[in-house]
Amino acid sequence: MISVLRLGHRVGRDDRISTHVGLAARQWGAEEVVFSGDKDEGMLESQQDIIERWGGNTEIQYTEDWKEFIRGFDGVKVHLTMYGERIEDKEEELRNRFENNDFLLIVGSEKVSRWVYENVDINLSVGNQPHSEIAALAVFLDRIRDRDIKHDFEDADIEVEPSKQRKLTKEKD
Amino acid sequence: MISVLRLGHRVGRDDRISTHVGLAARQWGAEEVVFSGDKDEGMLESQQDIIERWGGNTEIQYTEDWKEFIRGFDGVKVHLTMYGERIEDKEEELRNRFENNDFLLIVGSEKVSRWVYENVDINLSVGNQPHSEIAALAVFLDRIRDRDIKHDFEDADIEVEPSKQRKLTKEKD
Repeated sequence: MISVLRLGHRVGRDDRISTHVGLAARQWGAEEVVFSGDKDEGMLESQQDIIERWGGNTEIQYTEDWKEFIRGFDGVKVHLTMYGERIEDKEEELRNRFENNDFLLIVGSEKVSRWVYENVDINLSVGNQPHSEIAALAVFLDRIRDRDIKHDFEDADIEVEPSKQRKLTKEKD
Repeated sequence: MISVLRLGHRVGRDDRISTHVGLAARQWGAEEVVFSGDKDEGMLESQQDIIERWGGNTEIQYTEDWKEFIRGFDGVKVHLTMYGERIEDKEEELRNRFENNDFLLIVGSEKVSRWVYENVDINLSVGNQPHSEIAALAVFLDRIRDRDIKHDFEDADIEVEPSKQRKLTKEKD
């Protein structure tokens, strides 16, 4: 099971970034995406709408108390940050742990509290450079899940027909 | 050589998404990131500032005439879109072509013109689902470049010291 926690959402400024975090999490099969920071009903509803229309069981949630959420998570807690240890050095270990453990992936905002660095199992960098948390999350998931992009989502109302040159969708019963 | 073209940038609404596109492109060693849409001097300068400080030779450019840019590109033109053929079906072919060809990776905005679909070599989906173009770009680059995240950038003023629990950077001479 994979859970994603997005820290420090700000209404307005982070709408699209937070939405992309949710879409990437869903695309690689995360079971849960939890947002913290501003409680942004519009953003949460728009994610919920996408899931209702396009299917799947990814749960969209909000928590005010992210420390309690991190503390209470029973599994391996990975904070994705440009300051962390290199994915190249930790990937094998993490893949092994992923076989028998749930994973919590934490992605930040501009300023992540020191508390996070000190209360996770691993601070991990997908590149030690100025950082897209969306890129870091997607690449981490693609690697740890063995390139298993999820294609079929339960109870979808609509799906794409992959196409060489056109936008094709079909409505489902 | 990899060139990335980001279509349809809008001032305000897309600042952070476009910045993340640039950061992901640089992280996997793209030589050039070209923005189109609104000419957003602030966003372009902030990308340029990151490169000056953190190093490397990724060129940040702007073009008004994106059609001409696509037409004039001498290499394989890949449009990343949720409607395209599946990366699973095309990856091997693309990896082979990448050995001997420059690649142009095109990522869109909300509405990509039909012209793009019809004037590229391949419309490719990293998941046929509602889509983060940042995730699609990063995962495509990670796969096509054999997981080769770029760590050392020329002429950096600053670099991260990978760390288990802290934010460590060092200024370089």
